[in-house]
Amino acid sequence: MSRQAELNVIHPTLVEDGESVLILDQTRLPHHAVQVRLNTAEDAAHAIRSMQVRGAPLIGVTAAYGVALGLRHDESDSQLKRVIDLLAATRPTAVNLHWALARMQRVLQKFPQGCNALALVTRCEASTLGVRRERSWHEAGAIATEDIAANAAIGAHGLQILQGIAPKGGVFNVMTHCNAGRLATVAHGTALAPIYAVHAAGIPVHVWVSETRPRNQGLLTAWELAEAGVSHTLIADNAAGLLIMQDKVDLLIVGADRIAANGDTANKVGTYLKALAAAAHGVPFYVAAPLSTIDFSCASGQDIPIEERAAAELGAGDVPVVNPAFDITPAHLITGIISERGVAAPEELAQWKI
Amino acid sequence: MSRQAELNVIHPTLVEDGESVLILDQTRLPHHAVQVRLNTAEDAAHAIRSMQVRGAPLIGVTAAYGVALGLRHDESDSQLKRVIDLLAATRPTAVNLHWALARMQRVLQKFPQGCNALALVTRCEASTLGVRRERSWHEAGAIATEDIAANAAIGAHGLQILQGIAPKGGVFNVMTHCNAGRLATVAHGTALAPIYAVHAAGIPVHVWVSETRPRNQGLLTAWELAEAGVSHTLIADNAAGLLIMQDKVDLLIVGADRIAANGDTANKVGTYLKALAAAAHGVPFYVAAPLSTIDFSCASGQDIPIEERAAAELGAGDVPVVNPAFDITPAHLITGIISERGVAAPEELAQWKI
Repeated sequence: MSRQAELNVIHPTLVEDGESVLILDQTRLPHHAVQVRLNTAEDAAHAIRSMQVRGAPLIGVTAAYGVALGLRHDESDSQLKRVIDLLAATRPTAVNLHWALARMQRVLQKFPQGCNALALVTRCEASTLGVRRERSWHEAGAIATEDIAANAAIGAHGLQILQGIAPKGGVFNVMTHCNAGRLATVAHGTALAPIYAVHAAGIPVHVWVSETRPRNQGLLTAWELAEAGVSHTLIADNAAGLLIMQDKVDLLIVGADRIAANGDTANKVGTYLKALAAAAHGVPFYVAAPLSTIDFSCASGQDIPIEERAAAELGAGDVPVVNPAFDITPAHLITGIISERGVAAPEELAQWKI
Repeated sequence: MSRQAELNVIHPTLVEDGESVLILDQTRLPHHAVQVRLNTAEDAAHAIRSMQVRGAPLIGVTAAYGVALGLRHDESDSQLKRVIDLLAATRPTAVNLHWALARMQRVLQKFPQGCNALALVTRCEASTLGVRRERSWHEAGAIATEDIAANAAIGAHGLQILQGIAPKGGVFNVMTHCNAGRLATVAHGTALAPIYAVHAAGIPVHVWVSETRPRNQGLLTAWELAEAGVSHTLIADNAAGLLIMQDKVDLLIVGADRIAANGDTANKVGTYLKALAAAAHGVPFYVAAPLSTIDFSCASGQDIPIEERAAAELGAGDVPVVNPAFDITPAHLITGIISERGVAAPEELAQWKI
């Protein structure tokens, strides 16, 4: 609990006790702040798939803990593979999920597999038993801690940019899409981290929050902005173009689920339409995301798989539905990408390649 | 009832019997097809304000009948003025409303005011009593009949355009926004009239129907397309950009609530974002509307008032909301405007000035 206690957050998105993981069930927000306990890898997979946890960074962290949960009673290679395959299949677009699972696998395979308890007497070295299991909790915890640090750095780098754009005198009007706030992360958020930093710096800021159909994650953004005392107004997604045309938006900032090597960015469906409107009116459009969101193996947005979700999310009964969860914003519409390393133009991403 | 009977429509949007008006309550669709009887001008004003009837052309026709209803027991000049003021105040953006009321006033003021029944004995010429009242039903009926004819002509002119754009072989994919179908008119629809004509011509057509938050008029479009046997798929408004980017849309066609002299077009909020995406990918973007939608007294879109509707439409409880009902699509994003007179580029509208 220490990480969240330090942050003084009333409803942390994810906490753990080395045996199980407590998540805030985001499908119950904004009306109910309910925690759900995850005891197994299956619980973690369900939480990701059903969007009890959502947001690319938080999905990555939850998947890492899902691996740890999956090794509780069996830390064999075959179990590690089974658990990683299970978690990898939950959602296709957010690359942080695959990044976190690849990291867990890379680290854990260095440690000899122990045995499940029943096999201990017959086949195992007592000295190795539980090391991999213990290491899985350690590594998931490291991913969570790094997420907090990365987002804090995004906030600090973003603050520099936003301070330069905020009007001298008057309110700074920022528009975002979906929820890329603290609820999408372990803490601070990605797109909202610079906004929180601006607010903390005493600059009067107001956030246009788009509803984000069909899942209405805008309500999550409104909820956490209210919790943080940041002025905000909810709009239908359709209203974004008019507000930008009417000169009521000084800057757009969104998160990302996967950024291709050329800067094309997959984010919640509807992002592209906002980017088009921003470009049409010369309004800066920023993407804020940790480095783990950049997938250098995708040359462009065309290589990013787009998740198709259930028709039922639109609540239209028997009407035929197509429901893509993400869209691609081409790099040429993006002013800059803010990561924990700083700010880069989309064509400068290669400098961040490890 | 004869007009609708000829059209063989099961659920007509509006019928009248010379005493009262029966409307289809569109706030109950798509789940319930319920008729509501309007007996007074106040009933008509309520039906327009609450969107029991909606769609610029149908609003105009309902307002015309509202005048007739308002003169049933008092056909004096002062009553005529009161009724027109009442109806004019219901919704600000759709110009057809004001066009229809102006036409009713212009015609009816030529006829001497009769008297209300109580005053008959003392002050009125028996010969004039009821002439204005009778004329009001006649004129509202003429507006309704002309709406049907105009929309049929839009369908025929639109068919010529759409036939030229439809792919040779394969399905013709058209995207629309909101409902500009028969439910928005007395019959045929505006944006959907050419689609119905294409369907009737045997061209395989599929319609992408955007949900149209916050009022979800896309469900009305899906309902009437299903009724007509036209293939369609519902999408979240946010998905329009991705589908256009993915080359899944051959043409966009929408209605209009007011068209300025320069071709800038007010239509349901969200239209502008679709027009930006269409332009970005070279997809034709058409507006279909009767001449009564063109307001030559508005030089540009900046002169068109944008209706702000209730926060409750977003259903977000106490969250602060801004809810503009329309946006402006600049003329340069519009390929052509289809009216009952034919097809014109936005800069050629002056040829249609009467």
